[in-house]
Amino acid sequence: MAQTKSPAAKSKAAKGALKAPRVYDTRDAKNRKLTRKDVQKAAARYKNWGRWGKDDEIGTLNFTSAKDIVAAAQLVKKGKVISLALNYDQHGPQSGKTNYPALGRFNPIHVMTRTGTDAYSGILDHRKIRGTDDIVIMGLQSGTQWDGLGHILYEDYMWNGYDCRNVTSAGAQKAGIEKTREKMVGRGVLLDVAKAMGKKWLADGFAITTEILEYTERKLGVEARRGDYVLVHTGHIERCFASKSWDGYPGGDAPGFAFDTVDWFHKREIAGVATDTWGAEVRPNETEDTTQPWHWIAIPIMGLTVGEIFYLKDLADDCAQDKVYEFMFVAPALPITGGVGSPVNPLAIK
Amino acid sequence: MAQTKSPAAKSKAAKGALKAPRVYDTRDAKNRKLTRKDVQKAAARYKNWGRWGKDDEIGTLNFTSAKDIVAAAQLVKKGKVISLALNYDQHGPQSGKTNYPALGRFNPIHVMTRTGTDAYSGILDHRKIRGTDDIVIMGLQSGTQWDGLGHILYEDYMWNGYDCRNVTSAGAQKAGIEKTREKMVGRGVLLDVAKAMGKKWLADGFAITTEILEYTERKLGVEARRGDYVLVHTGHIERCFASKSWDGYPGGDAPGFAFDTVDWFHKREIAGVATDTWGAEVRPNETEDTTQPWHWIAIPIMGLTVGEIFYLKDLADDCAQDKVYEFMFVAPALPITGGVGSPVNPLAIK
Amino acid sequence: MAQTKSPAAKSKAAKGALKAPRVYDTRDAKNRKLTRKDVQKAAARYKNWGRWGKDDEIGTLNFTSAKDIVAAAQLVKKGKVISLALNYDQHGPQSGKTNYPALGRFNPIHVMTRTGTDAYSGILDHRKIRGTDDIVIMGLQSGTQWDGLGHILYEDYMWNGYDCRNVTSAGAQKAGIEKTREKMVGRGVLLDVAKAMGKKWLADGFAITTEILEYTERKLGVEARRGDYVLVHTGHIERCFASKSWDGYPGGDAPGFAFDTVDWFHKREIAGVATDTWGAEVRPNETEDTTQPWHWIAIPIMGLTVGEIFYLKDLADDCAQDKVYEFMFVAPALPITGGVGSPVNPLAIK
Amino acid sequence: MAQTKSPAAKSKAAKGALKAPRVYDTRDAKNRKLTRKDVQKAAARYKNWGRWGKDDEIGTLNFTSAKDIVAAAQLVKKGKVISLALNYDQHGPQSGKTNYPALGRFNPIHVMTRTGTDAYSGILDHRKIRGTDDIVIMGLQSGTQWDGLGHILYEDYMWNGYDCRNVTSAGAQKAGIEKTREKMVGRGVLLDVAKAMGKKWLADGFAITTEILEYTERKLGVEARRGDYVLVHTGHIERCFASKSWDGYPGGDAPGFAFDTVDWFHKREIAGVATDTWGAEVRPNETEDTTQPWHWIAIPIMGLTVGEIFYLKDLADDCAQDKVYEFMFVAPALPITGGVGSPVNPLAIK
Repeated sequence: MAQTKSPAAKSKAAKGALKAPRVYDTRDAKNRKLTRKDVQKAAARYKNWGRWGKDDEIGTLNFTSAKDIVAAAQLVKKGKVISLALNYDQHGPQSGKTNYPALGRFNPIHVMTRTGTDAYSGILDHRKIRGTDDIVIMGLQSGTQWDGLGHILYEDYMWNGYDCRNVTSAGAQKAGIEKTREKMVGRGVLLDVAKAMGKKWLADGFAITTEILEYTERKLGVEARRGDYVLVHTGHIERCFASKSWDGYPGGDAPGFAFDTVDWFHKREIAGVATDTWGAEVRPNETEDTTQPWHWIAIPIMGLTVGEIFYLKDLADDCAQDKVYEFMFVAPALPITGGVGSPVNPLAIK
Repeated sequence: MAQTKSPAAKSKAAKGALKAPRVYDTRDAKNRKLTRKDVQKAAARYKNWGRWGKDDEIGTLNFTSAKDIVAAAQLVKKGKVISLALNYDQHGPQSGKTNYPALGRFNPIHVMTRTGTDAYSGILDHRKIRGTDDIVIMGLQSGTQWDGLGHILYEDYMWNGYDCRNVTSAGAQKAGIEKTREKMVGRGVLLDVAKAMGKKWLADGFAITTEILEYTERKLGVEARRGDYVLVHTGHIERCFASKSWDGYPGGDAPGFAFDTVDWFHKREIAGVATDTWGAEVRPNETEDTTQPWHWIAIPIMGLTVGEIFYLKDLADDCAQDKVYEFMFVAPALPITGGVGSPVNPLAIK
Repeated sequence: MAQTKSPAAKSKAAKGALKAPRVYDTRDAKNRKLTRKDVQKAAARYKNWGRWGKDDEIGTLNFTSAKDIVAAAQLVKKGKVISLALNYDQHGPQSGKTNYPALGRFNPIHVMTRTGTDAYSGILDHRKIRGTDDIVIMGLQSGTQWDGLGHILYEDYMWNGYDCRNVTSAGAQKAGIEKTREKMVGRGVLLDVAKAMGKKWLADGFAITTEILEYTERKLGVEARRGDYVLVHTGHIERCFASKSWDGYPGGDAPGFAFDTVDWFHKREIAGVATDTWGAEVRPNETEDTTQPWHWIAIPIMGLTVGEIFYLKDLADDCAQDKVYEFMFVAPALPITGGVGSPVNPLAIK
Repeated sequence: MAQTKSPAAKSKAAKGALKAPRVYDTRDAKNRKLTRKDVQKAAARYKNWGRWGKDDEIGTLNFTSAKDIVAAAQLVKKGKVISLALNYDQHGPQSGKTNYPALGRFNPIHVMTRTGTDAYSGILDHRKIRGTDDIVIMGLQSGTQWDGLGHILYEDYMWNGYDCRNVTSAGAQKAGIEKTREKMVGRGVLLDVAKAMGKKWLADGFAITTEILEYTERKLGVEARRGDYVLVHTGHIERCFASKSWDGYPGGDAPGFAFDTVDWFHKREIAGVATDTWGAEVRPNETEDTTQPWHWIAIPIMGLTVGEIFYLKDLADDCAQDKVYEFMFVAPALPITGGVGSPVNPLAIK
């Protein structure tokens, strides 16, 4: 079994000896000292441009091999499917208020163009069939979503060094989300940081550092490897559910990745990562200079596909119960041509 | 191996002896003799209402067991992922013209709310991040799609006997597509009828009967079983691609299921079925009395989830090459609350 | 001059003697005693069905004669155009919260499909023109708007006795807003109730009764007549602006018409009426039995076209200054086929 | 009477002596010799930047004075209102095919969010009111429309010399259509070129030159003056109606303004102009170098507001009958913040 032979699993035995990681909170200004120069250095260090050829449009999704997919399927042992999506409707997270500048996002608008009430009223019968139809108007970033590689730009460039002017009003001419249509299948790993830290949910400004990610791995006995999809549970959505309000969720303060984890994602050669927060990385950010500095590096520089607003509670509960933190992960994006993102119903299959 | 022990596989040896099935064309009026009474009789015979309890909202998706899912994962041997979706864009099938009454469907409209050209122009920099966003406006029936159980009504009822007035302008209050969020995972089987019949694509009006489905199974050495997702390849999309026009595709004449196959789907206890046509069943329909009579029975009466506009060529090519017509099938609907359908990027994983 | 000869004008001299009208507040439960039976009686009394023929689809808009239009044009003396629309954007009233059940309305979503930043980036130049385009997604009830005659139904009927099933998912087959395309031109009269009552704005629950309307007429020296468009200023929007919040505006408590004014609108043979509130009539309504009882009578029974969310401050200021409360009113609906309402930029031309 | 004293009216008597104007057809390549240099020269000659101050955002709409508006109202003599809008629906012009590059425009999509069939089905009654609502999704350029001053850019500039980067994905930060909310009121003049040329409709490629505009004025006894809104009837829509197809209309060949008319519009100090064609100017354009060269000058350089897809037949018929080609014109744009255009229901009031 892949899982039992891993170094992480071996360290399981030694778990009692695990040293608690250092934690810090970015709401404290002293933890917001990252500079623009740090970001530039990271850009130089982690740049994957050209790594998969000059025409590549999918970045780290290349890390997952056919063999990895076969192995991932072997992780299906219970025949249990767990959806990681929030339903798309007017109760979604975009209703929340924040103090950050608005991005104009809104909850999905679902409208019907033929209904059962039309049918009941007899007005469809000239068609000799009683059918219904519907339409959705939705931001591709409005709920559970993949960020495509065109979603964040680095200076005048996008992923792989393409000119940022490839993302026009007509959509992304390069690295559109439709290029990923046969990806997002592989081994999934849940890093339940909230659980590892002994919390139901992590506080706003809680920085998930490399140290904390590795602590979580050892604590839970699982290890993220090349080609994996890593899901990081902070409990942020549960906190919103508990307070019956999304206020603060979209764009507000949140637990999330510290900037130093770009190194971890790079070394581990992770295919994709997703969290249950609005924006993956810790907020307030560790800097005043740039907004979402982790994104600056992860997406356009490393080519890392990032998922956001994944609903991870059901999966976390299941993993806590059977103590198996790896699974087959299948989360196909909708191939919306030129999309810089996609809604998705990600499935963990155990 | 499930595949090699199946009766279908055994019959492989005897394939040379296969008797060619009877074929007919519904463009010939003598093949349009189905009556409203026939439909009513079928409704009485195949009604699954209550079969999974009075509160069930997912119908035949219940046929797939956890064990089936585990077995389906075992079919992943090459680590190859094949998408069965057409891209969602202005080149989609809704541009085609037909002689049938319009349904008001349109190709997806994708618009950007922040772009790389905005970034290049410097107007995003006050945000300290260069990010892009987008919106889609799309009919849930506009491209590769699942029909939800609220999509077709039978008289004043919907699936499981729910009152059809549950599908209001506010969406489907019962059997909305979001109820399927942890389904659409199982064994997939490709019935390549076009190939079995020795054609690149089947003609309009070609009725795919039970006899032809079973002939195809024997010919290809595969058998559809309880809980499976059955994909039926007619080549209709390839024909449109060859003619560089979708004219006739949306709502027009097409090859597809004969009405008698409702019996086959019922007996075989199929979880879901999808085709590469606009409307699954043969057109012209086998009757003048009702429109899409197969849908009348399949969806509201049997509770069968139906996929349409699946792009099956790549899968058909792969199966023809490795002669393996079964695979893991993962095709999660987007959980749009109250949806009577969903766009989907269905994956065959081999 | 029409204005100086009117009885209202004559009474101007006697203004000092005006008796203050009775006022009441519907937030007090004792002022919410209207019954369903009262509504039914009013329906019988004020029903205009058939008044303009059995095929009529525009109701009281018929009251304005060609002669009235000529006379209205004579009111243009300063050459001043005053818009009564709020801009359509994300700052509109639909962002406000209320305690009433949500109607799913949202502020207009405006998106660009070609931009100046595209142009600047050089990506449009292959077209040999630098042009921009845009799209709006908007509820027809989201801002300054006309309610069409299909907007409110009385039991199973709509205006003129048409079956309510004429308003299907495909729109209003009868009395769609497009039928008014050559109406909404005539004499406009501003009844500045807030000013007449000596307030900047009226309180929530303030019932504008017939007595108060007539008091306002006498106080301001103007009289509403057959075929007029009557604009009633409550100051509700100014109150929202002052508080920098739309909370409570959409669907919340508000000043507005008392139910008894249906009699006044009927007798005066008013063509159309508009207010600066979300829903024209007083809220809380004067009853617990029905929601918006005034609408039940005004729209489907009387055929009265009603405007809402009209921005009346600029007009009120101008009228207060020149003491002329009548003007040419031109407020064409967009002829959206089958619409039950329309956004509008209403103009008062003085 | 303004009309009877005009030079045009005087020349009426001499009409018999009118010399037929020179006509030419741009489908003939020899009539497509306009160069980029000609366009540049015109830009230098007709530039109105700064004419109404450096902060102006409405251009030639400034030409109409208060006095002009008073005079325009005096033209209302019959009390007849004529709408110049096509209904907004799926039968609109965007369904037509052309050989020119697509602009992604589509006919308005109108959907209901509460219906009479919902009401009939009883599912609205918990609200204690039977009301309906609707939504429109429409390109602001999809039907009868005003082009705003942000719609066409000249090199890196927009109207008044503003940087073209003011038109971002968030809309036009300068010269948005909402700035015109109290404009589009004045004297309207119909130049029925089709009638003057003795045709029901003009042929594709028919160039409406200054000579032809002036010939039309003399022929019809009307003259366009400073501050007027000039409506030019070509009959193009009637031709589409006659052929029951919009093919060729959106973006295809059409009669329209010759480039030399920019001089005429400039000298005459016209406030706004509208035609019954898709794009106002003659197509094929008189050049291969630029697309819509007349637009390059009219909109960003002169600041001229241009209307398109105006339905002028009813007005043309009325004018032909009463021989009065002037009227009050009221055509308020919807103040969609940042819009580069607006749908409009323009009214001619006679």
